Amino acid sequence: MQTVVTGKNTEVKFGQGLPTVIIAERINPTGRKSLAEELKLGKFDIVQSDARKQSEAGAHIIDVNVGAVSVNEVEMLPAAIKKVMSVCDRPICIDSANPKAIKAALEVYPYKALINSVNGKEESMEEILPLVKESGCAVVCLTMDETGIKNDVEARFNVAKKIINRAESMGIKREDLVFDCLVMTASTDSNSAKITFETMRRVVAEFGVSTTFGASNISFGMPNRELLNIHFLTMGIINGLTAPITDPLIEGLIPAMKAADFLAGRDLYGMNYISDYRKK
Amino acid sequence: MQTVVTGKNTEVKFGQGLPTVIIAERINPTGRKSLAEELKLGKFDIVQSDARKQSEAGAHIIDVNVGAVSVNEVEMLPAAIKKVMSVCDRPICIDSANPKAIKAALEVYPYKALINSVNGKEESMEEILPLVKESGCAVVCLTMDETGIKNDVEARFNVAKKIINRAESMGIKREDLVFDCLVMTASTDSNSAKITFETMRRVVAEFGVSTTFGASNISFGMPNRELLNIHFLTMGIINGLTAPITDPLIEGLIPAMKAADFLAGRDLYGMNYISDYRKK
Repeated sequence: MQTVVTGKNTEVKFGQGLPTVIIAERINPTGRKSLAEELKLGKFDIVQSDARKQSEAGAHIIDVNVGAVSVNEVEMLPAAIKKVMSVCDRPICIDSANPKAIKAALEVYPYKALINSVNGKEESMEEILPLVKESGCAVVCLTMDETGIKNDVEARFNVAKKIINRAESMGIKREDLVFDCLVMTASTDSNSAKITFETMRRVVAEFGVSTTFGASNISFGMPNRELLNIHFLTMGIINGLTAPITDPLIEGLIPAMKAADFLAGRDLYGMNYISDYRKK
Repeated sequence: MQTVVTGKNTEVKFGQGLPTVIIAERINPTGRKSLAEELKLGKFDIVQSDARKQSEAGAHIIDVNVGAVSVNEVEMLPAAIKKVMSVCDRPICIDSANPKAIKAALEVYPYKALINSVNGKEESMEEILPLVKESGCAVVCLTMDETGIKNDVEARFNVAKKIINRAESMGIKREDLVFDCLVMTASTDSNSAKITFETMRRVVAEFGVSTTFGASNISFGMPNRELLNIHFLTMGIINGLTAPITDPLIEGLIPAMKAADFLAGRDLYGMNYISDYRKK
Protein backbone atom coordinates (compact mmCIF):
# COMPACT_ATOMS: atom_id res chain seq x y z
CA MET A 1 0.00 0.00 0.00
CA GLN A 2 1.45 3.37 -1.05
CA THR A 3 0.39 6.88 -0.17
CA VAL A 4 0.90 9.32 -3.03
CA VAL A 5 0.85 13.12 -2.81
CA THR A 6 1.75 15.56 -5.55
CA GLY A 7 3.08 19.04 -6.24
CA LYS A 8 3.82 20.81 -9.47
CA ASN A 9 5.67 18.16 -11.53
CA THR A 10 6.48 16.21 -8.37
CA GLU A 11 5.06 13.04 -6.96
CA VAL A 12 6.01 11.71 -3.53
CA LYS A 13 5.26 8.12 -2.51
CA PHE A 14 5.57 6.63 0.93
CA GLY A 15 4.50 3.53 2.76
CA GLN A 16 5.69 0.42 4.58
CA GLY A 17 9.05 -0.75 3.24
CA LEU A 18 9.60 2.37 1.15
CA PRO A 19 12.30 4.96 1.91
CA THR A 20 11.34 7.39 4.67
CA VAL A 21 9.77 10.64 3.50
CA ILE A 22 10.29 13.88 5.43
CA ILE A 23 7.39 16.25 6.03
CA ALA A 24 9.20 19.49 6.84
CA GLU A 25 7.79 21.20 9.92
CA ARG A 26 9.40 24.63 10.09
CA ILE A 27 6.56 26.67 8.59
CA ASN A 28 4.62 26.78 11.84
CA PRO A 29 4.44 29.85 14.09
CA THR A 30 4.07 27.79 17.29
CA GLY A 31 7.11 28.73 19.36
CA ARG A 32 8.55 30.83 16.51
CA LYS A 33 7.94 34.49 17.35
CA SER A 34 9.53 35.91 14.21
CA LEU A 35 7.28 33.83 11.96
CA ALA A 36 4.19 34.66 14.02
CA GLU A 37 5.08 38.36 13.76
CA GLU A 38 5.50 38.33 10.00
CA LEU A 39 2.24 36.43 9.50
CA LYS A 40 0.41 39.05 11.56
CA LEU A 41 1.78 41.66 9.18
CA GLY A 42 0.64 39.61 6.17
CA LYS A 43 4.23 38.94 5.12
CA PHE A 44 5.70 35.65 3.86
CA ASP A 45 9.46 36.15 3.72
CA ILE A 46 10.29 33.53 6.34
CA VAL A 47 7.64 31.21 4.88
CA GLN A 48 9.27 31.32 1.47
CA SER A 49 12.80 31.13 2.76
CA ASP A 50 11.91 28.13 4.96
CA ALA A 51 10.20 26.41 2.05
CA ARG A 52 13.33 26.81 -0.05
CA LYS A 53 15.80 25.83 2.63
CA GLN A 54 13.87 22.77 3.73
CA SER A 55 13.39 21.62 0.17
CA GLU A 56 17.10 22.02 -0.56
CA ALA A 57 17.96 20.13 2.64
CA GLY A 58 16.01 17.11 1.43
CA ALA A 59 12.41 17.63 2.59
CA HIS A 60 9.92 15.69 0.48
CA ILE A 61 6.74 17.44 1.60
CA ILE A 62 6.38 20.98 3.01
CA ASP A 63 4.01 21.38 5.95
CA VAL A 64 2.32 24.80 6.02
CA ASN A 65 0.74 25.95 9.27
CA VAL A 66 -0.09 29.60 9.96
CA GLY A 67 -2.09 29.16 13.17
CA ALA A 68 -1.30 31.98 15.60
CA VAL A 69 -3.16 34.57 17.65
CA SER A 70 -4.37 37.46 15.45
CA VAL A 71 -3.80 35.51 12.23
CA ASN A 72 -6.87 34.91 10.08
CA GLU A 73 -6.10 31.37 8.93
CA VAL A 74 -8.92 31.22 6.38
CA GLU A 75 -7.20 33.99 4.45
CA MET A 76 -3.60 33.40 5.38
CA LEU A 77 -3.32 29.63 4.89
CA PRO A 78 -4.22 29.72 1.16
CA ALA A 79 -2.05 32.82 0.73
CA ALA A 80 0.93 31.12 2.40
CA ILE A 81 0.46 27.99 0.29
CA LYS A 82 0.48 30.05 -2.89
CA LYS A 83 3.68 31.74 -1.76
CA VAL A 84 5.28 28.36 -1.02
CA MET A 85 4.19 26.99 -4.41
CA SER A 86 5.83 29.97 -6.10
CA VAL A 87 9.27 29.02 -4.77
CA CYS A 88 9.12 25.25 -4.38
CA ASP A 89 7.69 22.28 -6.30
CA ARG A 90 7.31 19.93 -3.33
CA PRO A 91 3.85 18.65 -2.34
CA ILE A 92 2.19 20.57 0.50
CA CYS A 93 0.88 19.35 3.82
CA ILE A 94 -2.08 21.62 4.65
CA ASP A 95 -1.88 21.96 8.42
CA SER A 96 -4.62 23.62 10.44
CA ALA A 97 -6.97 23.02 13.32
CA ASN A 98 -9.55 25.09 11.43
CA PRO A 99 -11.60 23.11 8.87
CA LYS A 100 -12.57 26.33 7.06
CA ALA A 101 -8.91 27.19 6.57
CA ILE A 102 -8.25 23.68 5.23
CA LYS A 103 -11.17 24.06 2.81
CA ALA A 104 -9.88 27.44 1.63
CA ALA A 105 -6.38 26.00 1.20
CA LEU A 106 -7.66 23.06 -0.83
CA GLU A 107 -9.31 25.54 -3.20
CA VAL A 108 -5.97 27.09 -4.15
CA TYR A 109 -3.93 23.87 -4.24
CA PRO A 110 -4.34 22.17 -7.62
CA TYR A 111 -2.48 18.95 -6.75
CA LYS A 112 -2.96 16.12 -4.28
CA ALA A 113 -2.12 17.50 -0.84
CA LEU A 114 -1.73 15.85 2.52
CA ILE A 115 -4.29 17.31 4.95
CA ASN A 116 -3.16 17.64 8.57
CA SER A 117 -5.34 16.44 10.30
CA VAL A 118 -8.46 14.54 11.23
CA ASN A 119 -8.91 12.78 14.56
CA GLY A 120 -11.38 10.34 16.06
CA LYS A 121 -13.70 13.01 17.45
CA GLU A 122 -17.12 12.85 15.82
CA GLU A 123 -16.93 16.55 14.97
CA SER A 124 -13.52 16.23 13.35
CA MET A 125 -14.52 13.24 11.23
CA GLU A 126 -17.72 15.03 10.15
CA GLU A 127 -15.87 18.16 9.11
CA ILE A 128 -12.62 16.83 7.66
CA LEU A 129 -13.39 13.49 6.02
CA PRO A 130 -15.82 15.01 3.46
CA LEU A 131 -13.05 17.44 2.44
CA VAL A 132 -10.68 14.49 2.02
CA LYS A 133 -13.25 12.64 -0.05
CA GLU A 134 -14.13 15.61 -2.28
CA SER A 135 -10.55 16.72 -2.86
CA GLY A 136 -9.14 13.22 -3.27
CA CYS A 137 -6.30 14.20 -0.95
CA ALA A 138 -4.55 12.15 1.71
CA VAL A 139 -5.01 12.92 5.40
CA VAL A 140 -3.11 12.57 8.66
CA CYS A 141 -5.25 10.70 11.21
CA LEU A 142 -4.52 11.34 14.90
CA THR A 143 -5.31 8.48 17.26
CA MET A 144 -7.17 10.61 19.79
CA ASP A 145 -10.85 11.40 20.25
CA GLU A 146 -13.39 12.95 22.66
CA THR A 147 -11.73 11.10 25.53
CA GLY A 148 -8.38 12.81 24.79
CA ILE A 149 -5.03 11.13 24.19
CA LYS A 150 -4.98 7.85 26.02
CA ASN A 151 -1.76 6.55 27.47
CA ASP A 152 -2.70 3.13 26.26
CA VAL A 153 -1.92 1.15 23.11
CA GLU A 154 -5.31 -0.53 22.88
CA ALA A 155 -7.21 2.76 23.21
CA ARG A 156 -5.14 4.49 20.51
CA PHE A 157 -5.43 1.45 18.26
CA ASN A 158 -9.22 1.51 18.62
CA VAL A 159 -9.35 5.16 17.55
CA ALA A 160 -7.33 4.27 14.44
CA LYS A 161 -9.82 1.52 13.68
CA LYS A 162 -12.76 3.89 14.14
CA ILE A 163 -11.28 6.43 11.71
CA ILE A 164 -10.45 3.76 9.11
CA ASN A 165 -13.97 2.34 9.29
CA ARG A 166 -15.57 5.76 8.93
CA ALA A 167 -13.29 6.87 6.10
CA GLU A 168 -13.67 3.63 4.15
CA SER A 169 -17.44 3.74 4.56
CA MET A 170 -17.32 7.11 2.77
CA GLY A 171 -15.22 5.70 -0.07
CA ILE A 172 -11.89 7.15 1.04
CA LYS A 173 -9.06 4.76 0.18
CA ARG A 174 -7.03 3.31 3.00
CA GLU A 175 -3.80 4.33 1.27
CA ASP A 176 -4.86 7.97 1.73
CA LEU A 177 -4.98 7.59 5.52
CA VAL A 178 -1.69 8.34 7.25
CA PHE A 179 -1.74 7.41 10.93
CA ASP A 180 -0.15 9.50 13.64
CA CYS A 181 -0.02 7.35 16.77
CA LEU A 182 0.95 10.45 18.80
CA VAL A 183 4.12 11.32 20.61
CA MET A 184 4.05 12.63 24.16
CA THR A 185 6.99 14.20 26.00
CA ALA A 186 9.40 11.56 27.31
CA SER A 187 10.63 13.67 30.22
CA THR A 188 7.21 13.48 31.87
CA ASP A 189 6.41 9.91 30.84
CA SER A 190 9.21 7.39 30.38
CA ASN A 191 6.82 5.04 28.56
CA SER A 192 5.98 7.62 25.92
CA ALA A 193 8.10 6.25 23.08
CA LYS A 194 7.21 2.66 23.80
CA ILE A 195 3.48 3.41 23.66
CA THR A 196 3.85 5.29 20.38
CA PHE A 197 5.87 2.52 18.75
CA GLU A 198 3.74 -0.33 20.04
CA THR A 199 0.58 1.39 18.79
CA MET A 200 2.25 2.07 15.45
CA ARG A 201 3.43 -1.52 15.07
CA ARG A 202 -0.05 -2.75 15.81
CA VAL A 203 -1.77 -0.32 13.43
CA VAL A 204 0.72 -1.26 10.69
CA ALA A 205 0.39 -5.01 11.30
CA GLU A 206 -3.40 -4.82 11.21
CA PHE A 207 -4.01 -2.26 8.47
CA GLY A 208 -0.73 -1.97 6.50
CA VAL A 209 -1.12 1.81 6.37
CA SER A 210 1.37 4.67 6.15
CA THR A 211 2.34 6.41 9.37
CA THR A 212 3.64 9.75 10.56
CA PHE A 213 4.40 11.56 13.78
CA GLY A 214 5.85 14.84 14.96
CA ALA A 215 9.26 13.78 16.21
CA SER A 216 10.12 16.89 18.19
CA ASN A 217 7.41 16.45 20.84
CA ILE A 218 9.43 13.65 22.44
CA SER A 219 12.31 15.88 23.55
CA PHE A 220 10.45 18.80 25.08
CA GLY A 221 12.28 20.27 28.08
CA MET A 222 15.51 18.33 27.46
CA PRO A 223 19.01 19.50 26.50
CA ASN A 224 20.34 18.71 23.01
CA ARG A 225 16.87 18.05 21.65
CA GLU A 226 18.26 17.51 18.15
CA LEU A 227 20.13 14.39 19.27
CA LEU A 228 17.00 12.99 20.90
CA ASN A 229 14.85 13.83 17.87
CA ILE A 230 17.27 12.10 15.50
CA HIS A 231 17.44 8.92 17.55
CA PHE A 232 13.69 8.93 18.07
CA LEU A 233 13.30 8.98 14.29
CA THR A 234 15.67 6.03 13.96
CA MET A 235 13.59 4.09 16.45
CA GLY A 236 10.47 5.07 14.53
CA ILE A 237 11.91 3.93 11.22
CA ILE A 238 12.60 0.39 12.46
CA ASN A 239 9.09 0.34 13.93
CA GLY A 240 7.17 1.27 10.79
CA LEU A 241 7.33 5.07 10.63
CA THR A 242 6.99 6.09 6.98
CA ALA A 243 6.76 9.90 6.90
CA PRO A 244 7.86 11.81 10.01
CA ILE A 245 7.06 15.49 10.51
CA THR A 246 10.42 16.97 11.44
CA ASP A 247 12.99 19.67 10.71
CA PRO A 248 15.33 18.63 7.87
CA LEU A 249 17.67 21.50 8.79
CA ILE A 250 18.75 19.72 11.99
CA GLU A 251 22.41 18.92 11.45
CA GLY A 252 22.96 15.24 10.82
CA LEU A 253 19.28 14.38 10.54
CA ILE A 254 19.23 13.48 6.85
CA PRO A 255 22.33 11.21 6.94
CA ALA A 256 20.95 9.54 10.07
CA MET A 257 17.64 8.86 8.35
CA LYS A 258 19.41 7.37 5.37
CA ALA A 259 21.41 5.15 7.73
CA ALA A 260 18.19 4.09 9.45
CA ASP A 261 16.49 3.38 6.13
CA PHE A 262 19.35 1.16 5.06
CA LEU A 263 19.31 -0.72 8.37
CA ALA A 264 15.55 -1.14 8.21
CA GLY A 265 15.75 -2.69 4.74
CA ARG A 266 14.12 0.33 3.12
CA ASP A 267 17.08 1.20 0.90
CA LEU A 268 18.07 -1.92 -1.05
CA TYR A 269 21.84 -2.53 -1.09
CA GLY A 270 22.14 0.90 0.57
CA MET A 271 22.12 2.63 -2.81
CA ASN A 272 20.71 5.87 -1.42
CA TYR A 273 22.91 5.76 1.68
CA ILE A 274 26.05 5.10 -0.33
CA SER A 275 25.34 7.81 -2.91
CA ASP A 276 26.15 10.54 -0.39
CA TYR A 277 29.62 9.13 0.12
CA ARG A 278 30.29 8.66 -3.59
CA LYS A 279 29.72 12.38 -4.18
CA LYS A 280 32.55 13.28 -1.85
CA MET B 1 15.72 -10.25 35.95
CA GLN B 2 19.21 -8.78 36.21
CA THR B 3 22.52 -10.09 34.98
CA VAL B 4 25.39 -9.23 37.30
CA VAL B 5 29.10 -9.45 36.50
CA THR B 6 31.95 -8.22 38.65
CA GLY B 7 35.52 -6.95 38.57
CA LYS B 8 37.79 -5.78 41.34
CA ASN B 9 35.53 -3.55 43.46
CA THR B 10 33.11 -3.14 40.55
CA GLU B 11 29.74 -4.65 39.88
CA VAL B 12 27.88 -4.20 36.61
CA LYS B 13 24.17 -4.96 36.30
CA PHE B 14 22.16 -5.14 33.12
CA GLY B 15 18.78 -6.37 32.00
CA GLN B 16 15.45 -5.36 30.51
CA GLY B 17 14.55 -1.80 31.46
CA LEU B 18 17.96 -1.05 32.93
CA PRO B 19 20.43 1.40 31.36
CA THR B 20 22.38 -0.05 28.45
CA VAL B 21 25.76 -1.54 29.33
CA ILE B 22 28.66 -1.45 26.87
CA ILE B 23 30.86 -4.49 26.37
CA ALA B 24 33.94 -2.95 24.79
CA GLU B 25 35.13 -4.87 21.75
CA ARG B 26 38.51 -3.45 20.79
CA ILE B 27 40.74 -6.09 22.40
CA ASN B 28 40.29 -8.53 19.52
CA PRO B 29 42.95 -9.17 16.87
CA THR B 30 40.42 -9.96 14.14
CA GLY B 31 41.07 -7.33 11.49
CA ARG B 32 43.60 -5.55 13.72
CA LYS B 33 47.06 -6.40 12.42
CA SER B 34 49.01 -4.39 15.00
CA LEU B 35 47.27 -6.18 17.88
CA ALA B 36 47.73 -9.59 16.24
CA GLU B 37 51.42 -8.82 15.78
CA GLU B 38 52.01 -7.80 19.38
CA LEU B 39 50.16 -10.86 20.69
CA LYS B 40 52.40 -13.10 18.56
CA LEU B 41 55.37 -11.46 20.27
CA GLY B 42 53.80 -12.05 23.68
CA LYS B 43 53.35 -8.31 24.25
CA PHE B 44 50.33 -6.53 25.75
CA ASP B 45 50.89 -2.82 25.20
CA ILE B 46 47.90 -2.33 22.92
CA VAL B 47 45.80 -4.62 25.13
CA GLN B 48 46.48 -2.47 28.18
CA SER B 49 46.13 0.81 26.37
CA ASP B 50 42.80 -0.30 24.86
CA ALA B 51 41.55 -1.46 28.24
CA ARG B 52 42.31 1.94 29.71
CA LYS B 53 40.94 3.99 26.85
CA GLN B 54 37.73 2.02 26.56
CA SER B 55 37.17 2.16 30.29
CA GLU B 56 37.71 5.93 30.33
CA ALA B 57 35.34 6.33 27.38
CA GLY B 58 32.52 4.71 29.33
CA ALA B 59 32.82 0.95 28.72
CA HIS B 60 31.22 -1.10 31.47
CA ILE B 61 32.74 -4.49 30.62
CA ILE B 62 36.01 -5.20 28.74
CA ASP B 63 35.90 -8.01 26.18
CA VAL B 64 39.23 -9.79 25.85
CA ASN B 65 39.83 -11.92 22.76
CA VAL B 66 43.32 -12.97 21.65
CA GLY B 67 42.33 -15.44 18.92
CA ALA B 68 44.75 -15.15 16.00
CA VAL B 69 46.95 -17.40 13.89
CA SER B 70 50.15 -18.37 15.78
CA VAL B 71 48.76 -17.22 19.13
CA ASN B 72 48.44 -19.90 21.81
CA GLU B 73 45.16 -18.83 23.36
CA VAL B 74 45.38 -21.21 26.30
CA GLU B 75 48.44 -19.32 27.48
CA MET B 76 47.77 -15.88 26.09
CA LEU B 77 44.12 -15.39 27.11
CA PRO B 78 44.80 -15.69 30.87
CA ALA B 79 47.94 -13.59 30.46
CA ALA B 80 46.04 -10.85 28.62
CA ILE B 81 43.28 -10.88 31.24
CA LYS B 82 45.82 -10.44 34.04
CA LYS B 83 47.34 -7.52 32.14
CA VAL B 84 43.91 -5.91 31.70
CA MET B 85 43.10 -6.42 35.38
CA SER B 86 46.32 -4.65 36.30
CA VAL B 87 45.20 -1.42 34.60
CA CYS B 88 41.41 -1.49 34.83
CA ASP B 89 38.77 -2.50 37.39
CA ARG B 90 36.00 -3.25 34.94
CA PRO B 91 34.51 -6.78 34.71
CA ILE B 92 35.94 -8.92 31.91
CA CYS B 93 34.20 -10.67 29.09
CA ILE B 94 36.27 -13.82 28.40
CA ASP B 95 36.01 -14.22 24.64
CA SER B 96 37.30 -17.30 22.85
CA ALA B 97 36.23 -20.06 20.50
CA ASN B 98 38.53 -22.38 22.43
CA PRO B 99 36.96 -23.94 25.57
CA LYS B 100 40.40 -24.74 26.98
CA ALA B 101 41.37 -21.08 26.75
CA ILE B 102 38.15 -20.09 28.50
CA LYS B 103 38.87 -22.61 31.24
CA ALA B 104 42.41 -21.27 31.68
CA ALA B 105 41.10 -17.70 31.76
CA LEU B 106 38.51 -18.54 34.41
CA GLU B 107 41.29 -19.90 36.60
CA VAL B 108 43.03 -16.50 36.74
CA TYR B 109 39.90 -14.35 37.00
CA PRO B 110 38.76 -14.17 40.63
CA TYR B 111 35.47 -12.35 39.99
CA LYS B 112 32.25 -13.10 38.08
CA ALA B 113 33.08 -12.85 34.39
CA LEU B 114 30.92 -12.94 31.30
CA ILE B 115 31.95 -15.89 29.12
CA ASN B 116 31.71 -15.35 25.36
CA SER B 117 30.22 -17.72 24.22
CA VAL B 118 28.15 -20.87 24.09
CA ASN B 119 25.89 -21.78 21.17
CA GLY B 120 23.21 -24.37 20.48
CA LYS B 121 25.61 -26.98 19.10
CA GLU B 122 25.66 -30.09 21.26
CA GLU B 123 29.44 -29.92 21.48
CA SER B 124 29.42 -26.28 22.57
CA MET B 125 26.81 -26.82 25.27
CA GLU B 126 28.71 -29.89 26.55
CA GLU B 127 31.98 -28.01 26.77
CA ILE B 128 30.96 -24.54 27.88
CA LEU B 129 27.92 -24.91 30.12
CA PRO B 130 29.78 -26.97 32.77
CA LEU B 131 32.37 -24.16 32.93
CA VAL B 132 29.57 -21.66 33.44
CA LYS B 133 28.04 -23.81 36.14
CA GLU B 134 31.31 -24.43 38.00
CA SER B 135 32.53 -20.86 37.84
CA GLY B 136 29.15 -19.27 38.55
CA CYS B 137 29.80 -16.85 35.68
CA ALA B 138 27.38 -15.45 33.12
CA VAL B 139 27.54 -16.51 29.47
CA VAL B 140 26.69 -15.12 26.05
CA CYS B 141 24.42 -17.57 24.19
CA LEU B 142 24.48 -17.45 20.39
CA THR B 143 21.26 -18.48 18.65
CA MET B 144 22.95 -20.80 16.15
CA ASP B 145 23.61 -24.54 16.17
CA GLU B 146 24.73 -27.48 13.99
CA THR B 147 22.46 -26.23 11.21
CA GLY B 148 24.31 -22.88 11.12
CA ILE B 149 22.79 -19.41 11.44
CA LYS B 150 19.25 -19.53 10.15
CA ASN B 151 17.78 -16.51 8.43
CA ASP B 152 14.58 -17.14 10.30
CA VAL B 153 13.14 -15.79 13.55
CA GLU B 154 11.47 -19.05 14.57
CA ALA B 155 14.66 -21.10 14.06
CA ARG B 156 16.81 -18.70 16.08
CA PHE B 157 14.17 -18.52 18.80
CA ASN B 158 14.14 -22.32 19.03
CA VAL B 159 17.90 -22.41 19.53
CA ALA B 160 17.53 -19.91 22.38
CA LYS B 161 14.91 -22.15 23.96
CA LYS B 162 17.15 -25.21 23.60
CA ILE B 163 20.06 -23.45 25.33
CA ILE B 164 17.83 -22.14 28.15
CA ASN B 165 16.37 -25.59 28.76
CA ARG B 166 19.78 -27.23 28.83
CA ALA B 167 21.35 -24.57 31.06
CA GLU B 168 18.46 -24.53 33.52
CA SER B 169 18.45 -28.34 33.71
CA MET B 170 22.06 -28.03 34.90
CA GLY B 171 21.15 -25.48 37.56
CA ILE B 172 22.45 -22.42 35.73
CA LYS B 173 20.28 -19.40 36.49
CA ARG B 174 18.42 -17.78 33.63
CA GLU B 175 19.74 -14.36 34.66
CA ASP B 176 23.23 -15.61 33.81
CA LEU B 177 22.26 -16.31 30.19
CA VAL B 178 22.76 -13.36 27.85
CA PHE B 179 21.26 -13.95 24.42
CA ASP B 180 22.91 -12.87 21.20
CA CYS B 181 20.29 -13.15 18.46
CA LEU B 182 23.04 -12.62 15.85
CA VAL B 183 23.65 -9.81 13.45
CA MET B 184 24.36 -10.48 9.77
CA THR B 185 25.65 -7.94 7.29
CA ALA B 186 22.87 -5.66 6.03
CA SER B 187 24.48 -4.96 2.67
CA THR B 188 24.00 -8.59 1.63
CA ASP B 189 20.62 -9.10 3.32
CA SER B 190 18.25 -6.18 3.69
CA ASN B 191 16.20 -8.17 6.23
CA SER B 192 19.16 -8.68 8.53
CA ALA B 193 18.29 -6.09 11.18
CA LYS B 194 14.62 -6.96 11.17
CA ILE B 195 15.34 -10.64 11.79
CA THR B 196 17.74 -9.82 14.65
CA PHE B 197 15.26 -7.48 16.33
CA GLU B 198 12.22 -9.69 15.87
CA THR B 199 14.09 -12.67 17.32
CA MET B 200 15.32 -10.53 20.20
CA ARG B 201 11.84 -9.16 20.95
CA ARG B 202 10.48 -12.69 20.98
CA VAL B 203 13.24 -14.09 23.19
CA VAL B 204 12.77 -11.16 25.60
CA ALA B 205 8.97 -11.45 25.64
CA GLU B 206 9.13 -15.19 26.30
CA PHE B 207 12.08 -15.46 28.68
CA GLY B 208 12.72 -11.91 30.02
CA VAL B 209 16.47 -12.42 29.62
CA SER B 210 19.35 -10.04 29.01
CA THR B 211 20.56 -9.63 25.44
CA THR B 212 23.68 -8.67 23.56
CA PHE B 213 24.98 -8.47 20.01
CA GLY B 214 28.03 -7.34 18.13
CA ALA B 215 26.83 -4.13 16.53
CA SER B 216 29.58 -3.70 13.97
CA ASN B 217 28.70 -6.78 11.90
CA ILE B 218 25.71 -4.93 10.47
CA SER B 219 27.75 -2.34 8.56
CA PHE B 220 30.37 -4.54 6.90
CA GLY B 221 31.35 -3.25 3.45
CA MET B 222 29.58 0.11 3.85
CA PRO B 223 30.91 3.67 4.04
CA ASN B 224 30.70 5.57 7.36
CA ARG B 225 30.25 2.37 9.35
CA GLU B 226 30.29 4.31 12.62
CA LEU B 227 27.05 6.10 11.71
CA LEU B 228 25.37 2.79 10.84
CA ASN B 229 26.65 1.12 14.01
CA ILE B 230 25.36 3.94 16.21
CA HIS B 231 21.89 3.89 14.68
CA PHE B 232 21.78 0.13 14.76
CA LEU B 233 22.43 0.32 18.51
CA THR B 234 19.60 2.81 18.89
CA MET B 235 17.26 0.44 17.10
CA GLY B 236 18.51 -2.37 19.32
CA ILE B 237 17.93 -0.40 22.50
CA ILE B 238 14.24 0.22 21.73
CA ASN B 239 13.91 -3.48 20.86
CA GLY B 240 15.32 -4.90 24.10
CA LEU B 241 19.10 -4.86 23.63
CA THR B 242 20.67 -4.66 27.09
CA ALA B 243 24.46 -5.01 26.60
CA PRO B 244 25.86 -4.47 23.10
CA ILE B 245 29.39 -5.48 22.17
CA THR B 246 30.74 -2.36 20.51
CA ASP B 247 33.55 0.18 20.38
CA PRO B 248 33.01 2.97 22.93
CA LEU B 249 35.70 5.05 21.23
CA ILE B 250 33.45 5.67 18.21
CA GLU B 251 32.79 9.40 18.27
CA GLY B 252 29.25 10.18 19.35
CA LEU B 253 28.40 6.63 20.36
CA ILE B 254 28.12 7.18 24.11
CA PRO B 255 25.90 10.31 23.87
CA ALA B 256 23.73 8.51 21.30
CA MET B 257 23.29 5.54 23.60
CA LYS B 258 22.34 7.81 26.45
CA ALA B 259 19.78 9.48 24.20
CA ALA B 260 18.42 6.08 23.19
CA ASP B 261 18.24 4.93 26.82
CA PHE B 262 16.25 8.01 27.75
CA LEU B 263 13.87 7.52 24.82
CA ALA B 264 13.44 3.84 25.65
CA GLY B 265 12.45 4.66 29.23
CA ARG B 266 15.69 3.18 30.59
CA ASP B 267 16.91 6.42 32.16
CA LEU B 268 14.17 7.80 34.36
CA TYR B 269 13.62 11.56 33.92
CA GLY B 270 16.74 11.47 31.72
CA MET B 271 18.98 11.95 34.75
CA ASN B 272 21.94 10.20 33.12
CA TYR B 273 21.36 11.89 29.74
CA ILE B 274 21.07 15.34 31.32
CA SER B 275 24.15 14.95 33.53
CA ASP B 276 26.46 15.25 30.50
CA TYR B 277 24.99 18.65 29.68
CA ARG B 278 25.15 19.92 33.24
CA LYS B 279 28.90 19.34 33.31
CA LYS B 280 29.44 21.74 30.41
